Amino acid sequence: MKKHNFFAGPGILPGPVYEQAKQAIDDFAGMGVSILSVSHRSAEFSAVMEKARTLVKELMNLDDDFEVLFLQGGASMQFLQIPYNLMHKKAAYLDTGAWASKAIKESRYFGETVVVASSANEQYSYIPKGYPVPEDADYLHVTTNNTIYGTQMFDFPETEVPLVADMSSDIFSRKLDFNRFGLIYAGAQKNMGPAGTVLVAVRKSLLGKTGRRIPTMLDYETHIAKGSMFNTPPVFAVYVSMLTLEWVKAKGGVEAMEKINREKSRLLYKELDRNPLFNTKVRKEDRSMMNVTFDLTDESLRPEFDRMWKEAGIIGLKGHRSVGGYRASLYNALPLESVKTLVEVMQELEKKA
Amino acid sequence: MKKHNFFAGPGILPGPVYEQAKQAIDDFAGMGVSILSVSHRSAEFSAVMEKARTLVKELMNLDDDFEVLFLQGGASMQFLQIPYNLMHKKAAYLDTGAWASKAIKESRYFGETVVVASSANEQYSYIPKGYPVPEDADYLHVTTNNTIYGTQMFDFPETEVPLVADMSSDIFSRKLDFNRFGLIYAGAQKNMGPAGTVLVAVRKSLLGKTGRRIPTMLDYETHIAKGSMFNTPPVFAVYVSMLTLEWVKAKGGVEAMEKINREKSRLLYKELDRNPLFNTKVRKEDRSMMNVTFDLTDESLRPEFDRMWKEAGIIGLKGHRSVGGYRASLYNALPLESVKTLVEVMQELEKKA
Repeated sequence: MKKHNFFAGPGILPGPVYEQAKQAIDDFAGMGVSILSVSHRSAEFSAVMEKARTLVKELMNLDDDFEVLFLQGGASMQFLQIPYNLMHKKAAYLDTGAWASKAIKESRYFGETVVVASSANEQYSYIPKGYPVPEDADYLHVTTNNTIYGTQMFDFPETEVPLVADMSSDIFSRKLDFNRFGLIYAGAQKNMGPAGTVLVAVRKSLLGKTGRRIPTMLDYETHIAKGSMFNTPPVFAVYVSMLTLEWVKAKGGVEAMEKINREKSRLLYKELDRNPLFNTKVRKEDRSMMNVTFDLTDESLRPEFDRMWKEAGIIGLKGHRSVGGYRASLYNALPLESVKTLVEVMQELEKKA
Repeated sequence: MKKHNFFAGPGILPGPVYEQAKQAIDDFAGMGVSILSVSHRSAEFSAVMEKARTLVKELMNLDDDFEVLFLQGGASMQFLQIPYNLMHKKAAYLDTGAWASKAIKESRYFGETVVVASSANEQYSYIPKGYPVPEDADYLHVTTNNTIYGTQMFDFPETEVPLVADMSSDIFSRKLDFNRFGLIYAGAQKNMGPAGTVLVAVRKSLLGKTGRRIPTMLDYETHIAKGSMFNTPPVFAVYVSMLTLEWVKAKGGVEAMEKINREKSRLLYKELDRNPLFNTKVRKEDRSMMNVTFDLTDESLRPEFDRMWKEAGIIGLKGHRSVGGYRASLYNALPLESVKTLVEVMQELEKKA
């Protein structure tokens, strides 16, 4: 039975990608050995790494100042690697949720950390706007989509300060002017691939300026100099990410992804607004296209609703353990059909109740 | 065609592991979703992580002071994470090759670093012995197997200083008194799994003593407190490692691995000692059971030898790019039959020459 996979991450990948991944476990690139057991220095895998890096630049239309890396440790490692590499004295952060807060915590190990605005007082149910950005900050860090709360940034501050963005949960899901950013990073396991690699696209012109001595593995310049192959990369995670990026391109790129993501999220929000049994706390203008958080208005319906969506073949609908309720993650690879199934279950519950 | 896979890493894994990995890409643990797309917080994956950690303790017979972690960044990240966590003021290192040298370089970011002995002057063709260990060192770091040069440590210094060991290329390949060590680490991609995770087994009693502020992700205590699930772990790499550990256990554990590895390496070294067309630079008492380095005595035979082993279905025999020649990696999963095939090719070359 094929499930409707609403997991928030690791999340659903395109069907053909699973097939190609299995094929490569049998025989990678016609070499007669598995992708799990092939030297990362082989010409065949080097080509995969180069293709993945090139596809990222292409899909985001990044200018030549950008270098693309596939590193390890997830976005959480970037929380410290960013200030290590970019903070001279002072960094600014927008606090839009748990992940932003974790990034802020790491920044404080390295220097003065200004929180320009926070929506903590309203359970991160909106994206703060109209805050001042200190002109002497080395960068402003934002989280473009907040997986736990279901908010997303649709506007970015006009500032001369370089923008650093955690795009873990909305990378490749929509068109943006990515050249407005100084550094973009994203754990792979939502819209790009399996867990085990983190994408970093960084402007070379921002590096090497802090005067700080950086341990080799934490220094972006180490990895740039070696084409993201300084040490053994996470071969399989990079391969599957490359396959997913090829799929995004074949489907029409980020514009095409945005179109379908818009359709999927519209359908679900429409039902949440209509159906009296459900509500969502997120402010309308900040509603995420990727992670839709909601809950029942009547707690007593929970066992019945849970039974119904499980019976409909839905998996991964539980909200984050810190907030409860429900969360439907509508990543690129999730078919419209899955959202329709969820909406039908919600309507069926209404009829029964 | 099935290849004889002599790659130095990522290296060969057991046949059944590839099959189980493919199966899990289709349907993990009967959940109806792929291992690539399942929440790491699911009960099913949490059980995998716990099983992997338990199997490591069991296979190495580790005492209760040890905590087992599956982290990211490879052994190279451990080069800095170890001094970050364990060095108060001074650390001692044994220099047995390129990887040891890289570990030494990182240690110098954190404090006084004493190189107790080095075999650099003889191209790392032996393991230094009989060196003094400074009693006030916080630890002594050794590399138990040197993948590039083909040397292996069979004796360890008697010292009160905690031993820290990079076992990346001989983990689970032989029986040792692992409780003599304070910290053991190993990149997965040789004897344990695919690239993308690094095993760390560390004594809790050594931690939290440096007074140094450690960024969250680099602090072992962060990961211990969360059962190696502080942030999204490299799900697939941990799963495949768990499968490989199960295979090692089913085959009879590290004693059984050592027996077959001894047989494989003996066969190959016997031929290298006998066949006048080949030589190896490594001192007899330090010869690795895992990576056998050798070369032709007559350069003019290279094209013919290369043609012959490729024709015999052998892959991955090239020496490391820094030393040239040949290297046969005889990891746990490599069948005896593959070594026999290589030896036959060597004998055939001798007949022809």
